[in-house]
Amino acid sequence: MDAAEFRRRGKEMVDYVADYLENIEKRQVYPDVEPGYLRSLIPEEAPEEAESYEDVFKDIERVIMPGVTHWHSPYFYAYFPTANSFPAMLADMLCGAIGCIGFSWAASPACTELETVMLDWLGKMLKLPEDFLAGTEGRGGGVIQGTASEATLIALLAARSKIVKLIQADHPDRSETHIISKLVAYSSDQFCATLGTTPSCAFDCVTELGPICNAEKIWMHIDAAYAGSAFICPEFRPLLNGIEFADSFNFNPHKWLLVNFDCSAMWVKNRSDIIGAFKMEPLYLKHDHQESGNHSHWQIPLGRRFRSLKIWFVFRMYGLKGLQAYIRKHVGLAKEFESLVRADQRFEISADVVLGLVCFRLKGSNELNETLLKRINNARKIHLVPCQLAGKFVLRFAVCARTTESRHVQEAWCHISHLASELLQELPH
Amino acid sequence: MDAAEFRRRGKEMVDYVADYLENIEKRQVYPDVEPGYLRSLIPEEAPEEAESYEDVFKDIERVIMPGVTHWHSPYFYAYFPTANSFPAMLADMLCGAIGCIGFSWAASPACTELETVMLDWLGKMLKLPEDFLAGTEGRGGGVIQGTASEATLIALLAARSKIVKLIQADHPDRSETHIISKLVAYSSDQFCATLGTTPSCAFDCVTELGPICNAEKIWMHIDAAYAGSAFICPEFRPLLNGIEFADSFNFNPHKWLLVNFDCSAMWVKNRSDIIGAFKMEPLYLKHDHQESGNHSHWQIPLGRRFRSLKIWFVFRMYGLKGLQAYIRKHVGLAKEFESLVRADQRFEISADVVLGLVCFRLKGSNELNETLLKRINNARKIHLVPCQLAGKFVLRFAVCARTTESRHVQEAWCHISHLASELLQELPH
Repeated sequence: MDAAEFRRRGKEMVDYVADYLENIEKRQVYPDVEPGYLRSLIPEEAPEEAESYEDVFKDIERVIMPGVTHWHSPYFYAYFPTANSFPAMLADMLCGAIGCIGFSWAASPACTELETVMLDWLGKMLKLPEDFLAGTEGRGGGVIQGTASEATLIALLAARSKIVKLIQADHPDRSETHIISKLVAYSSDQFCATLGTTPSCAFDCVTELGPICNAEKIWMHIDAAYAGSAFICPEFRPLLNGIEFADSFNFNPHKWLLVNFDCSAMWVKNRSDIIGAFKMEPLYLKHDHQESGNHSHWQIPLGRRFRSLKIWFVFRMYGLKGLQAYIRKHVGLAKEFESLVRADQRFEISADVVLGLVCFRLKGSNELNETLLKRINNARKIHLVPCQLAGKFVLRFAVCARTTESRHVQEAWCHISHLASELLQELPH
Repeated sequence: MDAAEFRRRGKEMVDYVADYLENIEKRQVYPDVEPGYLRSLIPEEAPEEAESYEDVFKDIERVIMPGVTHWHSPYFYAYFPTANSFPAMLADMLCGAIGCIGFSWAASPACTELETVMLDWLGKMLKLPEDFLAGTEGRGGGVIQGTASEATLIALLAARSKIVKLIQADHPDRSETHIISKLVAYSSDQFCATLGTTPSCAFDCVTELGPICNAEKIWMHIDAAYAGSAFICPEFRPLLNGIEFADSFNFNPHKWLLVNFDCSAMWVKNRSDIIGAFKMEPLYLKHDHQESGNHSHWQIPLGRRFRSLKIWFVFRMYGLKGLQAYIRKHVGLAKEFESLVRADQRFEISADVVLGLVCFRLKGSNELNETLLKRINNARKIHLVPCQLAGKFVLRFAVCARTTESRHVQEAWCHISHLASELLQELPH
């Protein structure tokens, strides 16, 4: 395929993408396929000879779409949202074309520099303490990781590297292995200090945890993977109070801030802590501007894509106000669903509804709720996943898609309520 | 931006991308900017109000392009290639639109299943031993990691988890911490067993290492990040001999197999080894087809994009023959450059030219070669990086771009040769 054919096929794909997203609610949100469905639909080996684009393109509907769970359908209420916006998709096209591997400043200065500045923009939107910003002379700064899991791992490794150095400064006779074998990591059953847990969007009290960590020289990492996006709204910013005690912080704009996956934003107060844990510099990566930010020292992978383009496009095309309105709309829809649940005496709300997630259940046994969830998902009209809260089987209703409106939430509730009625009528009185 | 505007802007972006790649050789391969150039070109904070797309679009040339190192220019010979092809970009557009987070089979069956089948396709192209394939009943299988570093880390963790279980089976009294503190990892100065090192594309003798590892129950991981793509050609496949002794293997189609970054292919003989090290299953990730491949158990991140689409598009639109022709062309260009160097008595070849990398230097001091490289890169006509081989400062000429032709290689050599002449004339006789 040459550039001329790409012009033609690329434009067809733009239309396909627009059609897909415009009409997504007509597709069944959860697929009907059984495990192994795909292998039988395609050859066992790659073709020897090139195939035509037409043949590839028509297989999207034949092979792929029947097995897709449509995360961007307004009938998708499972897990947590994953971001999807047109500006982010345009930026990703540009990212693919530039195709630089930004492991050092020299490998593509724009890639490293835009990322640093975008993480400053985002840090200011969240009103992070100044310590976390790079600015022109700051000691802190941000970096894009792939996922929150990676950010947490990086924080752990940085914390370990820092404390080993501290202890060795006082006790030069102790080996690294010996020190590491004595280290302890504290966590809740959701792991690190979490603002907005996955099961129920619960918040750890970091204003209490923080001073203890600081006094005891414990590295505090805060993960706000889902909830973090909401902190751009002044009314939700208090949920981030205590951040000033943290050493590192991350959240996922790829969840709820309209920046397509993957984009997990991570900040540290002292970037030397994190760089110290990872720095590795063979000659082929050395260049004249060695101190100008080598983000590969902030992460496990060496290579990295030009992901900050997505942030730049999205923030500029929505503006802070547009992004705030988006968050508020989703929270509003969750509150609307909460009211519907509360108005039905058969149901109970299982956790405070703080942001876009509603945890709810039928008053009754876990088995009853498991059956209800099974019927909801088997009906394929909407898609939910459960969680376990204090031994109880709970249904999670997460407002996910960019195009979810009040009518979808109302429709989802009618559907759930109807299935619940059917189920309860079947029970022996 | 709504779907209607995306249709228009997306098509403009397709043209911009096609223009960029068609005319890339007219752009200076390495940028002129100094560190910090970008911060002064854009505002210090994200805008409150939405901006127009026109304003964002025109900033690509004003803000971004002046700071881009053009990895896909035929004058780029630095590091190793990073893949860039039109079919992969089309697939990435689709991947962005579907935007599923394929951490489990249920989260999007097509995402998990196509990945498994594509890794089987690719494994067959490399003639990997049957053990590494998933098939319908195999115990092995492949997965896409982001980078080779991640694949290596996963292999280390899987190896650790496996040996701890083995030792605990014989010695139930020994704690995991105690066992781990006694473990040893063997590596060369390029880390694990490597086929095609980064400095010089050297090959470890895995047919010698392998039997020792097997006899001593040492997990053998082989990394062929760059060279692996070449193994699809029968004439280069012998370089992979010994793979039958390995427990895990990875290479990067995103380097040399026309699949855009990120796409590092990793296979294991026993997928239970790797899954055992990572399995983590909260209720919200459980589903009815739990055993149908949850790739999040194969990696550090939980989330994952639909990256196998890129492989599917590229393999079908090039065909195996097209991909082989691409590899052979690059190797041919490297051999052509090698001949030019060998024909010039002032230069020497510093390592066997096996694939697309030529390591060479002026006969003389390291300082002389450092000066030559500095002049080459300062002239900005081509871009190279150095390496160190047995204490010698060596220049690396890696054939990188998809559009590199003989004329570019000839031109690059004329340029290097000319700069060398200038430099040598300046020296005192």
